[in-house]
Amino acid sequence: MFSHQADVERLNDAQMRALLASRPVALLPMGAVESHGEHLPAGTDNILARRLAVALVEKLAGSVPVMLLPLLPFGQVWSLSDAPGSFTLSNETVTRIILEIARSTKAKGLATMVIVNAHYGNAAAIRDAQRLLKEEAFTLALFNYPGADIPTRAVREKPIVHASFMHACEIETSYMLHLAPEYVRMELAISNYPQFPADFAEIPYRWSEFSASPVLGDATAATAEKGKIILDAVINRMAELVGELYSRQP
Amino acid sequence: MFSHQADVERLNDAQMRALLASRPVALLPMGAVESHGEHLPAGTDNILARRLAVALVEKLAGSVPVMLLPLLPFGQVWSLSDAPGSFTLSNETVTRIILEIARSTKAKGLATMVIVNAHYGNAAAIRDAQRLLKEEAFTLALFNYPGADIPTRAVREKPIVHASFMHACEIETSYMLHLAPEYVRMELAISNYPQFPADFAEIPYRWSEFSASPVLGDATAATAEKGKIILDAVINRMAELVGELYSRQP
Amino acid sequence: MFSHQADVERLNDAQMRALLASRPVALLPMGAVESHGEHLPAGTDNILARRLAVALVEKLAGSVPVMLLPLLPFGQVWSLSDAPGSFTLSNETVTRIILEIARSTKAKGLATMVIVNAHYGNAAAIRDAQRLLKEEAFTLALFNYPGADIPTRAVREKPIVHASFMHACEIETSYMLHLAPEYVRMELAISNYPQFPADFAEIPYRWSEFSASPVLGDATAATAEKGKIILDAVINRMAELVGELYSRQP
Amino acid sequence: MFSHQADVERLNDAQMRALLASRPVALLPMGAVESHGEHLPAGTDNILARRLAVALVEKLAGSVPVMLLPLLPFGQVWSLSDAPGSFTLSNETVTRIILEIARSTKAKGLATMVIVNAHYGNAAAIRDAQRLLKEEAFTLALFNYPGADIPTRAVREKPIVHASFMHACEIETSYMLHLAPEYVRMELAISNYPQFPADFAEIPYRWSEFSASPVLGDATAATAEKGKIILDAVINRMAELVGELYSRQP
Amino acid sequence: MFSHQADVERLNDAQMRALLASRPVALLPMGAVESHGEHLPAGTDNILARRLAVALVEKLAGSVPVMLLPLLPFGQVWSLSDAPGSFTLSNETVTRIILEIARSTKAKGLATMVIVNAHYGNAAAIRDAQRLLKEEAFTLALFNYPGADIPTRAVREKPIVHASFMHACEIETSYMLHLAPEYVRMELAISNYPQFPADFAEIPYRWSEFSASPVLGDATAATAEKGKIILDAVINRMAELVGELYSRQP
Amino acid sequence: MFSHQADVERLNDAQMRALLASRPVALLPMGAVESHGEHLPAGTDNILARRLAVALVEKLAGSVPVMLLPLLPFGQVWSLSDAPGSFTLSNETVTRIILEIARSTKAKGLATMVIVNAHYGNAAAIRDAQRLLKEEAFTLALFNYPGADIPTRAVREKPIVHASFMHACEIETSYMLHLAPEYVRMELAISNYPQFPADFAEIPYRWSEFSASPVLGDATAATAEKGKIILDAVINRMAELVGELYSRQP
Repeated sequence: MFSHQADVERLNDAQMRALLASRPVALLPMGAVESHGEHLPAGTDNILARRLAVALVEKLAGSVPVMLLPLLPFGQVWSLSDAPGSFTLSNETVTRIILEIARSTKAKGLATMVIVNAHYGNAAAIRDAQRLLKEEAFTLALFNYPGADIPTRAVREKPIVHASFMHACEIETSYMLHLAPEYVRMELAISNYPQFPADFAEIPYRWSEFSASPVLGDATAATAEKGKIILDAVINRMAELVGELYSRQP
Repeated sequence: MFSHQADVERLNDAQMRALLASRPVALLPMGAVESHGEHLPAGTDNILARRLAVALVEKLAGSVPVMLLPLLPFGQVWSLSDAPGSFTLSNETVTRIILEIARSTKAKGLATMVIVNAHYGNAAAIRDAQRLLKEEAFTLALFNYPGADIPTRAVREKPIVHASFMHACEIETSYMLHLAPEYVRMELAISNYPQFPADFAEIPYRWSEFSASPVLGDATAATAEKGKIILDAVINRMAELVGELYSRQP
Repeated sequence: MFSHQADVERLNDAQMRALLASRPVALLPMGAVESHGEHLPAGTDNILARRLAVALVEKLAGSVPVMLLPLLPFGQVWSLSDAPGSFTLSNETVTRIILEIARSTKAKGLATMVIVNAHYGNAAAIRDAQRLLKEEAFTLALFNYPGADIPTRAVREKPIVHASFMHACEIETSYMLHLAPEYVRMELAISNYPQFPADFAEIPYRWSEFSASPVLGDATAATAEKGKIILDAVINRMAELVGELYSRQP
Repeated sequence: MFSHQADVERLNDAQMRALLASRPVALLPMGAVESHGEHLPAGTDNILARRLAVALVEKLAGSVPVMLLPLLPFGQVWSLSDAPGSFTLSNETVTRIILEIARSTKAKGLATMVIVNAHYGNAAAIRDAQRLLKEEAFTLALFNYPGADIPTRAVREKPIVHASFMHACEIETSYMLHLAPEYVRMELAISNYPQFPADFAEIPYRWSEFSASPVLGDATAATAEKGKIILDAVINRMAELVGELYSRQP
Repeated sequence: MFSHQADVERLNDAQMRALLASRPVALLPMGAVESHGEHLPAGTDNILARRLAVALVEKLAGSVPVMLLPLLPFGQVWSLSDAPGSFTLSNETVTRIILEIARSTKAKGLATMVIVNAHYGNAAAIRDAQRLLKEEAFTLALFNYPGADIPTRAVREKPIVHASFMHACEIETSYMLHLAPEYVRMELAISNYPQFPADFAEIPYRWSEFSASPVLGDATAATAEKGKIILDAVINRMAELVGELYSRQP
Repeated sequence: MFSHQADVERLNDAQMRALLASRPVALLPMGAVESHGEHLPAGTDNILARRLAVALVEKLAGSVPVMLLPLLPFGQVWSLSDAPGSFTLSNETVTRIILEIARSTKAKGLATMVIVNAHYGNAAAIRDAQRLLKEEAFTLALFNYPGADIPTRAVREKPIVHASFMHACEIETSYMLHLAPEYVRMELAISNYPQFPADFAEIPYRWSEFSASPVLGDATAATAEKGKIILDAVINRMAELVGELYSRQP
């Protein structure tokens, strides 16, 4: 359990002082509370973000010093905000939270923070924070499953619903089957390929306006093995990126 | 494990719909990342808030419908913000987070949310949110260990440091020994009675200006039994309050 | 009338230049417009803050240079905001006002400002300003009747209504009988001990929800002598604190 | 002393209820803390606003119900902000203060508030508030010495410095000699006709950049009689305007 | 077409680098979309601002380096906001836009920006920006037809409606007949002298409350020659002012 | 010149009233001031947005009523903000501008506004506005060259630099050669295929950190014909979308 040595919530002051002295890269997992249909729970993004972050810490143990902050469990959920399991923050509030945690981290003498993000809706707010912090000489990195593209193309069996959007689908369900199978009820998994409105890119639609389920894709095709193949690649790539960020610190 | 039936992060959409139909009282645990010296970890307030909330859900199982939201792990930490394990949000951001989660909850048809708060520094920001939400016909309750006063006076053996402030002391350490003993290292517990500045009420002091340790009180006097006595009373009182809030819902 | 020599509103530019050259401690009295029942007027807090500040200036005359700013007559009034004589600002606006006056004061070369506050509802907003100004290397002190506790316990004859709240009661009415008797109509004084709701600490209540009168306590027990005993102690303690703040200036 | 019957700070709850029942026009005097040279004190605008408002209340006694709020003593002071007796708020804060007091007044059932303003620098911020409140169906009137133009042209003996700006001059000093002679030191009055920069309308200049004194005009020509002639006209016009505002209330 | 050499929208990077190296004064034309009755279009202020700015650039060609930014076509339109051709921004947004463009300009190494403003309603928001930028050591100048007063008095044949307000009148229509005759339909020009409310200075009135037309004055008296006389003087004065601003740059 | 009949800047009040009575779809073109290298000017996005919007109006003439607002010439430019021809607004300010223009448009009785956007950097800020306006029952559509994908794949001869980013490249230069050839200097066109950093998706990079030129792609391959093929498709698709938006209006 190497991750315990990096987990801020478990450390006392002496341990924190020692950890800070190593100038670690801070890791902030971030998810959302959002409906994922019937086979996955509303906390799916939080569960994934937390476990991915822990896996990353384990991977880096002994090579790159990192500091694991607690997960931010609420994110920006707009497209599914009227679904029963969704609770949302505004983009502006998400940006503020990240800015303030980053500044607190900088005040401890650190120079780099990575957001291990499992919820796509957070990305715009995080990007605003990234740019503002760059002016303050602090590096904020955003990890949205880096390194997933190639293995995903390799393992995917079912078509995608939309070039940019998928949800609770073959891929995300595979992540859960690999990292958190106890939360998955495959007997309730469905395949759902709604027709997106022709002007979906131009007009703001909540998904409930064109889809009966929050699932976008074919969850029945998910397997733990697919999840493992992709996420092993993701964890490797994340570890590589953190190593580079660490080595670039002033 | 009744708490699973109320835990939003574990529920699928059908379960969430059923839960919402019962018009539950929403519970939002709230802590902070804050130094607690050497015998308690920086996540102490988060650990306490989460476990207290779970205990409350268990207590209410079968009698009052509740909906457990994930813990907000960052809070307003000013007095100890320069200690190694402290990371802070501003009061204004804490207020915004709570307002937005409450409005999201209201949009689901609910009328009441309770904050199970284990970090005193959050109280002012929560109070601002309580008053604003009252104008919006939504009840936000704040639980700061309700019902603790009488049993605390009964079990306390060591003097308090200050009428309003204590930290990582006989009482809080007893809470941890009862609810989360695996995080406590009693061999590092100390007694610390710093001299507060005579103008402490008038001038803003960070505690590091007058105390070598974040501990304020005598942690060595803590026992799991003291924690159990107080927290059993707290959980009873919280359950009673939630029951009343539920019965008063329009 | 020594206070005239410190009263910014009465000084011309030459006098202001001379006063600023002495690096005085700035004093900002602060009250509120708030109902005080039938025996005290809505301006009670303003009258008390102004007279206390003048008394403090007189006390310090010849020993510690001070600069008296005009009274801020509007404050944060929530608990009694629906009473006929109450007019309120938001916490955020109160904080902004104080920050801007403090920065204006700092721009004149001064390093310390004291708020002589007679309205408890202002305290949270002032505290936010205190902390922000500390980061800007400016000391903002908050005086909420410092030194009152011991003499109050000595002279009080009637029980308190609540550990934290009292209003237009034995004590505050005694202050007015001592400092501003021409505003008091003792023939209308009442004793009012309403039952606070059991969940008063958890839920935001306006006082009108449980009390027919804004009076919280027994105003009939007030005497000018009680007021004098307490306020003499308060003025002594304020003078002592200002002296210390002055001597600590960089 | 009719004004006492309208002065919120002096009224108890029964009196406030009776006053509110008459649907009075609220009066909010507003000044500033600003250098006025050597012959007038920094509180000049506050003194004038307060006394003008009291004179207006006296004038209206028995005919139009009015409610006198306490004076707002800090205003927006930019042009003279670097003078020794000047302390400033931002336009945005001034607007917020007025909006919140107006909304508090509206919550009491009133429909009209008049700002009796003696500091020209407040006008832009007040205007923003006027327009916002109009959308909220609340009338906010701004009185900047209404009715002064004709009598001023009649009594003025000395040239003006600038079409839009004058300060501590023949006219303002005459106001003080009439309303508050105890604050005027005519032996220190000067005549000051600085050369305004040719691009004064285009570039933001503080007055200290082109004038050795805050006096803009000839204060030596001031007399109490001039002040009386103008201000009697102003008070008459203000009374007339308040009467019309009252009669137009819904 | 000298103006092309200064027009940012027409320049490539090499040209921009060369222009910036000359430390030009930046010019930002600013208008509004606002009803101007029947004889002038809603874009009148934009057309005037753009053409005046181009004329200024032509005038300065070869003598003072300037950089022409694109026109800001939306401004603060309150008085006529309910007229059919009016679209408005808030004062706060106008101030923000200007601050951000100025800071972007400063980041390029420039020290001075001039707003060539053809819409009076923008002035208050611009003034706030001027003062804030002065604290940031950046000069923002505001040109509201400088130099127009004397020639206007010389050519004007018809009375003015109000000391401060005129609109789509003899003068503004003359400007259009001179600079943009293709947009003017003199056959629809009218003379309109509405009665302003007696309390127009004290109460916020939209013009529709007292005038059937947005025209304030006598548009039928407009001629291209009057426009030319005034605007030649304005352009000369603007050129002179820009020259001075350029020579004062640090 | 049908577009004149829809162009707000050219319309008088009678024309605006008639246009508004037809309940037109409002069109707001939006670009940016941004470096485009040596062969295209800094105003490229503004020129394209304006001409595309005019072409759309012409296309719709006689079939769907539209109202053309003036172009917003400043946008959010971050990636190239340090290039010589770039001037930027913040995302927050862009969102505010759009919200306020949309609300002004709604106040005229209209229900739909389309942003004809030629600058990709504006999209995030526009999306925030879209979502907020949806809650206000106003439809804001965003057109980022809709319908361009298929014809682009058909005519493109050179590879793309990056899946999401291209700039002043084969495609955009072709747009300019078709719509605004007088602004293009093909003799300065270059091909530029910089190596994007491997962590470009994770870390905020300004393009100057990895590319010597703002050109991203091969501008030398641009032709007017390619531009025509794509933009004819875009204009057709835009016209179709506006027709649908019009027909869906309540």
